[in-house]
Amino acid sequence: MDFLDALAKRARTIDAALDRYLPPENADPQVIHAAMRYSVFAGGKRIRPALTLAAADAVGGNPEHVLPAACAIELIHTYSLIHDDLPAMDNDDLRRGKPTNHKVFGEDIAILAGDALFTHALHLLVLGGRETGPDPVLLLTVVEEVTQACGSSGLIGGQVMDLLAEGKPVSEEDLVRIHRAKTGALFRVGVRAGAILSGAGLEQLASLTTYAENFGLAFQITDDILDVTGDEAKIGKLVGSDARNRKSTYATLFGIGEARAKADRACSDALAALDELGREADFLRHAVQFVAAREY
Amino acid sequence: MDFLDALAKRARTIDAALDRYLPPENADPQVIHAAMRYSVFAGGKRIRPALTLAAADAVGGNPEHVLPAACAIELIHTYSLIHDDLPAMDNDDLRRGKPTNHKVFGEDIAILAGDALFTHALHLLVLGGRETGPDPVLLLTVVEEVTQACGSSGLIGGQVMDLLAEGKPVSEEDLVRIHRAKTGALFRVGVRAGAILSGAGLEQLASLTTYAENFGLAFQITDDILDVTGDEAKIGKLVGSDARNRKSTYATLFGIGEARAKADRACSDALAALDELGREADFLRHAVQFVAAREY
Repeated sequence: MDFLDALAKRARTIDAALDRYLPPENADPQVIHAAMRYSVFAGGKRIRPALTLAAADAVGGNPEHVLPAACAIELIHTYSLIHDDLPAMDNDDLRRGKPTNHKVFGEDIAILAGDALFTHALHLLVLGGRETGPDPVLLLTVVEEVTQACGSSGLIGGQVMDLLAEGKPVSEEDLVRIHRAKTGALFRVGVRAGAILSGAGLEQLASLTTYAENFGLAFQITDDILDVTGDEAKIGKLVGSDARNRKSTYATLFGIGEARAKADRACSDALAALDELGREADFLRHAVQFVAAREY
Repeated sequence: MDFLDALAKRARTIDAALDRYLPPENADPQVIHAAMRYSVFAGGKRIRPALTLAAADAVGGNPEHVLPAACAIELIHTYSLIHDDLPAMDNDDLRRGKPTNHKVFGEDIAILAGDALFTHALHLLVLGGRETGPDPVLLLTVVEEVTQACGSSGLIGGQVMDLLAEGKPVSEEDLVRIHRAKTGALFRVGVRAGAILSGAGLEQLASLTTYAENFGLAFQITDDILDVTGDEAKIGKLVGSDARNRKSTYATLFGIGEARAKADRACSDALAALDELGREADFLRHAVQFVAAREY
């Protein structure tokens, strides 16, 4: 599939940038930099930062100029995974087929590595953003939106709701709220950041926001489905963990068939949102087909 | 003492602002907002944000305009205390005479409350800063400096070095590095933020930076001394915890007499740094006298 090649190419660009932007592993205190790098380079698909670059493309911007913002989004994603995996939270030993951060570095360093990745993400967003030269006001808007998306009404709020919901019956409305905060907010702000920093117009921004919200939803539903039907070797973790943790998901709440239909609908809505955009948005379109057919 | 009245007055202004700036306790998910507010309103002296306001005064600025930045500094301080107190870190049950965050809300919520306070601090810095209207470039500079001060070469790096040093003999050089990162960086950036956002000139900024570095050092040394000689009722925690945790401090490394002499020297250096500033810097001067005579 062409899209996988295109994604792999973008992932290489992003990996090289992450390596440049992160403190070197031999900088003191070394253990924290080793821990940060361990999880950042643990085999992520880089789909979120690739969408940030693609959003710049879609509005006629230069993806290189939003590379710091794209990397910041990936660092934030990594921070949230490290903290979610902690024994006090989801208590996961494996992530993408490798021992989780606290299994390798201990709980204390894992907590601090998560903290440091989030801190560094915001530092990079501002510092890197200043070097690539967008209007300072646009950069401030992005910092404002990113910190909103990561806060108690976004990423963190979603994780809290998820913890509270464990072992309890959950309504569709609750499930939508949890996923919108926990997964959706970061997809949304990642795409918006790429567009805003590239000088997108209001209509373009609205289209891309609708795209990102639906993309994030489809991505989450397929994640839930893969937890039931997936191939452990491909997805890098044990299947059935949601059922074991008595977690309500689209798959457990609706069954695979209806969950699949909901994912398909979100994919259609994501594609429809791009109708007014040209060929420059093709990466975003192909990403939807990838999610629809996702096996890992 | 006049200074304690002046500090109490500033603390009331800061407390009212923190109450306005934090999400309300009844906003969903309520438990995270309750946990954030619990530690923010657990009896802090507000010395760091008071210095941010005082730095604005010292360079002829309006302290009200840097109130969001001052509150952001206090939220960051609170986040670092919550994470430092966790069982996986210093495992403290009491802070300022009250049960620590994880004792009340559980480890999962405590980790997330720390995360959320840091996230909200940066959101507030940008959002509040935009409302009070400084040059966007100055605001970006402050976000850049704050995220630098909080990262793996600042706050987080200091906590890592502190964890690694536990139970081991530590040189004076190491101790200086740990304290400069763990305590000094936040005092330094808090003062600089107040000055930068108020349009300080380069010489003023350099003077205030030297002041803040020495103030932070004196504050840390007196903290170490109080852990040996302090009155538990006044300082709100058990004395002797550093010795029990086999932690090297200025008091354990040099003895009380020499530690006191080092604190006095830092206080003199802090005062000398203010020589070129007028009466507008008197709060900063009186703060030094307060630290020199500190009992809690």
